[in-house]
Amino acid sequence: MSQPHDKNKKKRPRWRTKKRMVPAGAAPGTMHVDPTADETIIRVITANNGSFVDREHVSIAQLEQMLESPSWIWIDVSGLGTESSLKRIAELVKIHPLAMEDVLHVNQRAKVDQFGDSLFVVARMIDGTDARDSEQISFILRPNILVSFQQRHGDCWDPVRIRIRDGKNAFRSHSIDYLLYALLDSIIDSYFPFIDQLADQLDHIDESITLGLEDGAFDKLHQLRSQLLALRRVIRPHRDMVNQLIRDDYDLIVPETRIFLRDCYDHVIHVSDSTDTYNEAANGIRDYHMSMVSNRMNEIMKVLTIMSSIFIPLSFVVGLYGMNFNTDLPGNMPELNIPHSYEYLLLFMACAAVGMLLYFRKKKWI
Amino acid sequence: MSQPHDKNKKKRPRWRTKKRMVPAGAAPGTMHVDPTADETIIRVITANNGSFVDREHVSIAQLEQMLESPSWIWIDVSGLGTESSLKRIAELVKIHPLAMEDVLHVNQRAKVDQFGDSLFVVARMIDGTDARDSEQISFILRPNILVSFQQRHGDCWDPVRIRIRDGKNAFRSHSIDYLLYALLDSIIDSYFPFIDQLADQLDHIDESITLGLEDGAFDKLHQLRSQLLALRRVIRPHRDMVNQLIRDDYDLIVPETRIFLRDCYDHVIHVSDSTDTYNEAANGIRDYHMSMVSNRMNEIMKVLTIMSSIFIPLSFVVGLYGMNFNTDLPGNMPELNIPHSYEYLLLFMACAAVGMLLYFRKKKWI
Amino acid sequence: MSQPHDKNKKKRPRWRTKKRMVPAGAAPGTMHVDPTADETIIRVITANNGSFVDREHVSIAQLEQMLESPSWIWIDVSGLGTESSLKRIAELVKIHPLAMEDVLHVNQRAKVDQFGDSLFVVARMIDGTDARDSEQISFILRPNILVSFQQRHGDCWDPVRIRIRDGKNAFRSHSIDYLLYALLDSIIDSYFPFIDQLADQLDHIDESITLGLEDGAFDKLHQLRSQLLALRRVIRPHRDMVNQLIRDDYDLIVPETRIFLRDCYDHVIHVSDSTDTYNEAANGIRDYHMSMVSNRMNEIMKVLTIMSSIFIPLSFVVGLYGMNFNTDLPGNMPELNIPHSYEYLLLFMACAAVGMLLYFRKKKWI
Amino acid sequence: MSQPHDKNKKKRPRWRTKKRMVPAGAAPGTMHVDPTADETIIRVITANNGSFVDREHVSIAQLEQMLESPSWIWIDVSGLGTESSLKRIAELVKIHPLAMEDVLHVNQRAKVDQFGDSLFVVARMIDGTDARDSEQISFILRPNILVSFQQRHGDCWDPVRIRIRDGKNAFRSHSIDYLLYALLDSIIDSYFPFIDQLADQLDHIDESITLGLEDGAFDKLHQLRSQLLALRRVIRPHRDMVNQLIRDDYDLIVPETRIFLRDCYDHVIHVSDSTDTYNEAANGIRDYHMSMVSNRMNEIMKVLTIMSSIFIPLSFVVGLYGMNFNTDLPGNMPELNIPHSYEYLLLFMACAAVGMLLYFRKKKWI
Amino acid sequence: MSQPHDKNKKKRPRWRTKKRMVPAGAAPGTMHVDPTADETIIRVITANNGSFVDREHVSIAQLEQMLESPSWIWIDVSGLGTESSLKRIAELVKIHPLAMEDVLHVNQRAKVDQFGDSLFVVARMIDGTDARDSEQISFILRPNILVSFQQRHGDCWDPVRIRIRDGKNAFRSHSIDYLLYALLDSIIDSYFPFIDQLADQLDHIDESITLGLEDGAFDKLHQLRSQLLALRRVIRPHRDMVNQLIRDDYDLIVPETRIFLRDCYDHVIHVSDSTDTYNEAANGIRDYHMSMVSNRMNEIMKVLTIMSSIFIPLSFVVGLYGMNFNTDLPGNMPELNIPHSYEYLLLFMACAAVGMLLYFRKKKWI
Repeated sequence: MSQPHDKNKKKRPRWRTKKRMVPAGAAPGTMHVDPTADETIIRVITANNGSFVDREHVSIAQLEQMLESPSWIWIDVSGLGTESSLKRIAELVKIHPLAMEDVLHVNQRAKVDQFGDSLFVVARMIDGTDARDSEQISFILRPNILVSFQQRHGDCWDPVRIRIRDGKNAFRSHSIDYLLYALLDSIIDSYFPFIDQLADQLDHIDESITLGLEDGAFDKLHQLRSQLLALRRVIRPHRDMVNQLIRDDYDLIVPETRIFLRDCYDHVIHVSDSTDTYNEAANGIRDYHMSMVSNRMNEIMKVLTIMSSIFIPLSFVVGLYGMNFNTDLPGNMPELNIPHSYEYLLLFMACAAVGMLLYFRKKKWI
Repeated sequence: MSQPHDKNKKKRPRWRTKKRMVPAGAAPGTMHVDPTADETIIRVITANNGSFVDREHVSIAQLEQMLESPSWIWIDVSGLGTESSLKRIAELVKIHPLAMEDVLHVNQRAKVDQFGDSLFVVARMIDGTDARDSEQISFILRPNILVSFQQRHGDCWDPVRIRIRDGKNAFRSHSIDYLLYALLDSIIDSYFPFIDQLADQLDHIDESITLGLEDGAFDKLHQLRSQLLALRRVIRPHRDMVNQLIRDDYDLIVPETRIFLRDCYDHVIHVSDSTDTYNEAANGIRDYHMSMVSNRMNEIMKVLTIMSSIFIPLSFVVGLYGMNFNTDLPGNMPELNIPHSYEYLLLFMACAAVGMLLYFRKKKWI
Repeated sequence: MSQPHDKNKKKRPRWRTKKRMVPAGAAPGTMHVDPTADETIIRVITANNGSFVDREHVSIAQLEQMLESPSWIWIDVSGLGTESSLKRIAELVKIHPLAMEDVLHVNQRAKVDQFGDSLFVVARMIDGTDARDSEQISFILRPNILVSFQQRHGDCWDPVRIRIRDGKNAFRSHSIDYLLYALLDSIIDSYFPFIDQLADQLDHIDESITLGLEDGAFDKLHQLRSQLLALRRVIRPHRDMVNQLIRDDYDLIVPETRIFLRDCYDHVIHVSDSTDTYNEAANGIRDYHMSMVSNRMNEIMKVLTIMSSIFIPLSFVVGLYGMNFNTDLPGNMPELNIPHSYEYLLLFMACAAVGMLLYFRKKKWI
Repeated sequence: MSQPHDKNKKKRPRWRTKKRMVPAGAAPGTMHVDPTADETIIRVITANNGSFVDREHVSIAQLEQMLESPSWIWIDVSGLGTESSLKRIAELVKIHPLAMEDVLHVNQRAKVDQFGDSLFVVARMIDGTDARDSEQISFILRPNILVSFQQRHGDCWDPVRIRIRDGKNAFRSHSIDYLLYALLDSIIDSYFPFIDQLADQLDHIDESITLGLEDGAFDKLHQLRSQLLALRRVIRPHRDMVNQLIRDDYDLIVPETRIFLRDCYDHVIHVSDSTDTYNEAANGIRDYHMSMVSNRMNEIMKVLTIMSSIFIPLSFVVGLYGMNFNTDLPGNMPELNIPHSYEYLLLFMACAAVGMLLYFRKKKWI
Repeated sequence: MSQPHDKNKKKRPRWRTKKRMVPAGAAPGTMHVDPTADETIIRVITANNGSFVDREHVSIAQLEQMLESPSWIWIDVSGLGTESSLKRIAELVKIHPLAMEDVLHVNQRAKVDQFGDSLFVVARMIDGTDARDSEQISFILRPNILVSFQQRHGDCWDPVRIRIRDGKNAFRSHSIDYLLYALLDSIIDSYFPFIDQLADQLDHIDESITLGLEDGAFDKLHQLRSQLLALRRVIRPHRDMVNQLIRDDYDLIVPETRIFLRDCYDHVIHVSDSTDTYNEAANGIRDYHMSMVSNRMNEIMKVLTIMSSIFIPLSFVVGLYGMNFNTDLPGNMPELNIPHSYEYLLLFMACAAVGMLLYFRKKKWI
């Protein structure tokens, strides 16, 4: 009994977002590292004598050394669990305490904030099958430096890294804000398989309900609507975020990159638009389902009513002549002693039944 | 069993949009030609010594030659399946890689984008009976050059071509942006038969439901609402697109053309407005239908309740006198041995039935 | 059978707007006169030597002559069926082809467009009992010239004509834009009887449903909501239209007239506001009705359940003692041969029935 | 029968607003006095040699005299039924005809209009228990002159009058726009008891429905929603009206008064906000009620189904052995002649009943 | 019986806000102290010779003395019941009468108002488990002086006080507006436990309904929706309030503090966003619940209909042969005297029952 319960529980979306770790009233900008989070791993891609270097598992000491060279550098931090490393990175790249606080509180909405000469960008990625369990990706953009903080290990940026390594792409000719664009675009692209999957589910549910095969279709619809709701909540702030990057006069974003960001904006709109459309479609299916349930109830009630209306009165009649009144006394059921009265009675009951059927046909019930 | 299933499936709208062909994280501006798409055919209309030339199935070599002459040229590309042709066209007309990417990803929303001195316009056309299966038409407008990319073969532009050939219309006196307007206007006009057809369906469904002829009316309403939802999703971005062409200071659109575009904008509003109105009307019909189903259920239940309430108690009474208690013993059903008791019982039952009927009449059930 | 069908059909609102006569892709600004439209009749009111002249059934030749005099002239064209007259008027008053196209396509939304030095205004009037069947009234305003095109014969402007003739009103001291205001105001005023009638229907329906007199009240509510929906669609664009006349810097509208137009704007808001309120009120009544239907169903079900729950078990009991087991054999219904057992049974059944009634009372069903 | 009908009718909100008295197409600015309106009474408060004078039932002649003195004057006109007085006041204070028209058509929405150097303000007051029956209060503000027109006799301004008389308040040091503010604020304050009363009703209804005491709770909810709808319609335009007085550069409103009007604006927002919240709360209660009705129906159906499912089959069985087949013939109901068969049958029926009960328990119906 | 009633009543949200104590029409800016409110306690934190002093239960005399020193001072007033103290504080700190009026009317929405050189800020805190019972916190910010008025004793500011005392935080280096930020941020942070608790409830309800354990889940959902509605009403004005503090050019808020307020704004958005999402999730659960209730009703009806449809006709048949017609007369139930007719009848009834079952299986009811 308890097992299906647990399984069900696991699958159900969790509305509860993670508890805020910071006690209410704590000083702003304090770093509160969650000790249960993934261990912090640093990967650095930097330009070294014209060729690009990609080094994984960089130590803090190595990072310090690398930051001394004046060239282009992308510091990719994944896992937010090692306090010492995170504190040192924040100092080295001069990250504003408020930005660092938001990096660590992984339930931020997508946004852009400017702190002095650095830009702080938050995006969210869906890396599983549950829109509620989105991963926060934060970026700090400074001249020639981009720091990315991933909440969890594993990302969708390998194609970008390959393009950087191959060098055949625009990365060398563009400034570092182009890299920010490329990473953001990869994040947004990761939404497409998810919405495609939701669309497939929607199709499947619609088909099941239309054909009357209700194999838990309404349960699935409920799950789907929860996912769409959560997806909408996650994707919507990205519109403002990307739009702000395009429109506002941040010096760090060159005009050329803005053209590319416009393309990224189109993708965000596409996801957000699909979410809204699927949501309305899901509402339509719900209405349709409710209506079909009502119709089916009507069908059932008609059968019951027809059967009952015909046979209950007839049962009364046959019960009547089953009574044991003493027929020897005057006025007591003389019909029972009339020849062929049984046949007359059968005829009468047949007529009554046919009359009822005609009445129901007139009412268009049959 | 499987056949109606398949047929049904075919008719059902597909919420799933086409899969994005580009792998997530791919470099922006890469051309990904879908090999299953229609073969690319080029048709060119150009001014040649004052008269207009209309040549179909133009080869790339011929196109290059034609582009050398300084005059007005409309390159109409239909089918997006031949990679070599598309790449060469993009080079010849200097189309921005991001624009070319959007031309090939045929699930763009209607929009306008400016790339340097060229304007990139996307519109969508409904060429069948399913608003989800809309065709993407993209335009590249440069001084004296208009390139149109049609997703599929076959279009609605023959009247425009005839007007160009006949020359009696404004095409010679206007700049090439007027041609863009004329083509956009034709696309928007193609929505009108579609919404007329939806309005006819709506009328038919409303009539069916009002008259109680439920020949699958609610199924049709569900389909209609899906279509309206899809139509709204397709048409809505056209408002912004046309409005942007009118309002923004694109040098390529002369003021005279803007007056015509304003007319086109009115048509877009008309379609979008009708969609909204039909949608609300469909909701009204749904509510009405739900209410009628409930009312009918009430009717059915009343019949059942009246029949049952009258005859079930009477059946009890006649059952009572059908019991086989030994009437020779004292206190055991002495009624059975009283003369005329049968007739008194019949009278009593008639009174009970009439009493019930009066009670139901008082309750306004009959 | 077919007669009530037809009658019903006639009364039902038609969602289908008139078919667009222009083939898709036709040149913009082409005149497509609908030959089935009302015959074109021209009526001219003009200033002649200080006094006003009002001449009906003016011929094109007379009109030409009248236009030569430099004074104030109102050309009132009703009926859009005579192509030759309409073409000639368009030439004489120099109406822009796009404006003339909109005059003839009588499903325009209310709007203002400026063509060079003339203003093109479209309004819609409800002249019957169906908000879908609204009549398009178009105006061309030029210095000292106002042309009005009425879709159908018959209008609501006689009071305005009388005020012009009597001359006691402001018409002589004001410029011709004041006349445009006066005509627009009359059109908007024509909505008030219509919304008053809708409010009366709403009251009647509300009363019927509250008192439980369901003489087709829900059908009427469905009709009413359709009307409100159509009315909203018709009136809403008037807000923008009148507002644009007030705010935009059209030279043809003098500041003094703008004050009057502000009054007209208040009336438009009043109609539009009432429409929204009545719509929400109609939704409230629908909810109330649905709830009452459910409540009544509950009542019906309670009666059925109480009757069945009491008498079906009792019927079983009396059926039990109606069985014909051979009581001479041991263990076969010895109760039948016990004195007074019938009376004990009656007592038992009475107790069972009272028990059921007490149970239902505890459940608050009775 | 007719009495409760009438009573009910009286209580029901009237969606129908008063008929517009002006014939459509009448000249704007014409005065149409409703002869059935309250008789016009004039009360004047004015400064006379430093002390304030408050005189009721002032005649037109006296008013003329009072207007000659240059000081501060508040002309309070209540009742709009005496044409001669109203016409004379309009002349004396030089009220614009369009403003005067709006004063007399008592179904205006709250608004501000500027006519030359005078300000025309309309507000609405709820002076009873029905939000539909709101009273129109119009103000004409000119330098040193404030005219207020009350639709009906009786107002909520006595505290203001006392504050003026006592002189201890700011009235002497402020310009006359402060008086306008004070009167408007009194009007807005008059909404608070009304919304408090609606909140009490909402609480009462919520409690009734939660506890299952349905003493017409849903009827009351329907009334309440109508009231909230009407209230929203009345209060909403006040937001724009007060906001316009604060923001727009009317010379007649001094900056100091604007601070007070901001306070008044807060009150309007409070009312409007409460209306929206109560409306949503009412919707929540409606949903809850609907759900409880469904749940109760389920309960009723379960009882019916359990009783029927157990006893109808058993009745069949006992009916079976009540048949009168001739047991002397072979194969005809030999069971009847087996000893103890009656007891076996009873056992079998008990088992069947228990089986059914277990089945229903498994289905969680009992 | 009355006890659960009372308990229930206590738990139910109260839509009724507190009665406004001020009589309608009273002079603005009058102080109306509610004598039933908490007793007024003053606590002062001030800078004294470089170190900070924190003194509780400060008397008015002491406060006067402390205000004389020119340094930074935070006057924390909790409880609004002691008129004399409040009046004296208002005089000492020169609080505008309108601001003081709003301090005492504890049903203000969150807002910012500027009175001369002081800023008046209102926020609301949820300090229990009921969003309707929010506490009003008002602030008066003047150069170097911050006065906070708490409606009730007890607050969430101890962490801030500790940070001030410890001095290790930014309080000494920042101006007093930073303290305002810190207090506002603490207030907003106090919403997070509340929404977490609502999310937990939502999860619990969703689980209960999905698993079909309806232990009053719908009642809880109704309560939850009321709470979400009230929460939305409380939190929404905070968006405008904080945003206004960030955007508007108040001299008292230095740019550095605005960066911190932006962080506070993010938190407000987070709460407001969660509220909206949970509300939609609650609607989804309601729809799901309604649908499950309908489905269950269908199940129940199917069982009833199947049982009735099979056994009612069979009961009729067995009743038929239970009739007591005199079989000795011709034509009267000759079947009874045919050998094995009983067995034929049993066979016939079995076939009928199986036929019914097949029919229901075809209808997919079983």
